[in-house]
Amino acid sequence: MALFITFEGGEGSGKSSALAKIVEVFKEKNIPFILTREPGGTPIGEEIRDILLSSQNENMDIRTEALLFAASRRQHLTKRIWPALEKNVYVLCDRYLDSSLAYQGAARKLGIETVYEINRFATEDSLPDLTFFFDITPEEGLARIAKNKGREVNRLDKETLDFHHAVYDGYIELCKKFPKRIIRIDASQELDKVVSDCLIILKERMSEL
Amino acid sequence: MALFITFEGGEGSGKSSALAKIVEVFKEKNIPFILTREPGGTPIGEEIRDILLSSQNENMDIRTEALLFAASRRQHLTKRIWPALEKNVYVLCDRYLDSSLAYQGAARKLGIETVYEINRFATEDSLPDLTFFFDITPEEGLARIAKNKGREVNRLDKETLDFHHAVYDGYIELCKKFPKRIIRIDASQELDKVVSDCLIILKERMSEL
Repeated sequence: MALFITFEGGEGSGKSSALAKIVEVFKEKNIPFILTREPGGTPIGEEIRDILLSSQNENMDIRTEALLFAASRRQHLTKRIWPALEKNVYVLCDRYLDSSLAYQGAARKLGIETVYEINRFATEDSLPDLTFFFDITPEEGLARIAKNKGREVNRLDKETLDFHHAVYDGYIELCKKFPKRIIRIDASQELDKVVSDCLIILKERMSEL
Repeated sequence: MALFITFEGGEGSGKSSALAKIVEVFKEKNIPFILTREPGGTPIGEEIRDILLSSQNENMDIRTEALLFAASRRQHLTKRIWPALEKNVYVLCDRYLDSSLAYQGAARKLGIETVYEINRFATEDSLPDLTFFFDITPEEGLARIAKNKGREVNRLDKETLDFHHAVYDGYIELCKKFPKRIIRIDASQELDKVVSDCLIILKERMSEL
């Protein structure tokens, strides 16, 4: 059976770059997959994403934000993720539930359990089969973003360093809460090494690799 | 202290027309108020409203819909409703929590209690002081809409008659659940009589009237 695999981490953790390389491997091996992301992943989800990431929406209440992420997730899950898995197609997803738990639950202090509750409504307890946490300190991650001038700065990038530390601490808590599901990857390494670390784990779970 | 007053009912119940007349009375008496509506009521809320009411978004999952309404409500509550009440300004609101309970909870069968739970997250248990339920059968309400050709048909208007009956039954259940807060108004009467019935209730609660 195809797996639902998510990629998590703070800003500048390099998860999207690693994901692009992993996708190449899936293509080479002719493994059926979809590559998707949150927030977004569906037409309605992309509309929600625009509201969430708009720099003009800086007075968004924290609970509004958490509900919008959950709404986008619900649509994504029912219209893309579940249908793919039902057809035995792998799902590679850039951010999912754990992002909400780390960002809104931990960093914005709504509480991981509180945010988990509304996400249980959104997901009907459907968790990823495997999650990679790209572990890098906020200082290193933000330094990478600063170097990468081609990328537009969005509303979440503008948060303070304290915020990014709280996100990081949230992810560490989630690694303890879900030790079987979440695999920590040392994301401070060179990209190729990060990718090969992910592939070692994937090969353990996937006969196709 | 100013009150938070909501107006609820099915399609074509005439609540918006009655509300417009009640607003005239508030103006005549120089009673400070804001007139607002859900979904919407804030810039972010209006963006969410556009997603919710777009005829193109017909494949929206029911839980996505419930989360979007809750997100819009949270923004509305924190950025407009609470600030108005803090300044002792009345809030007159066209639809609020009970709409979610009747439409998503009852008619879309998510369950009134389930939808109430995510709305408790959104509202932190902040309920209106007074709610008018405009009681009219779905048949009569929809016949009114059919006559009123000036109004654009939105995604929710397109539902079947069964759906509108389930909404109505949901409201009746809410009247029983919140007998002190929700006042039933016979909305099958002429508009002027509907308005005067509302004003009788308001006069009991407002020394300004």
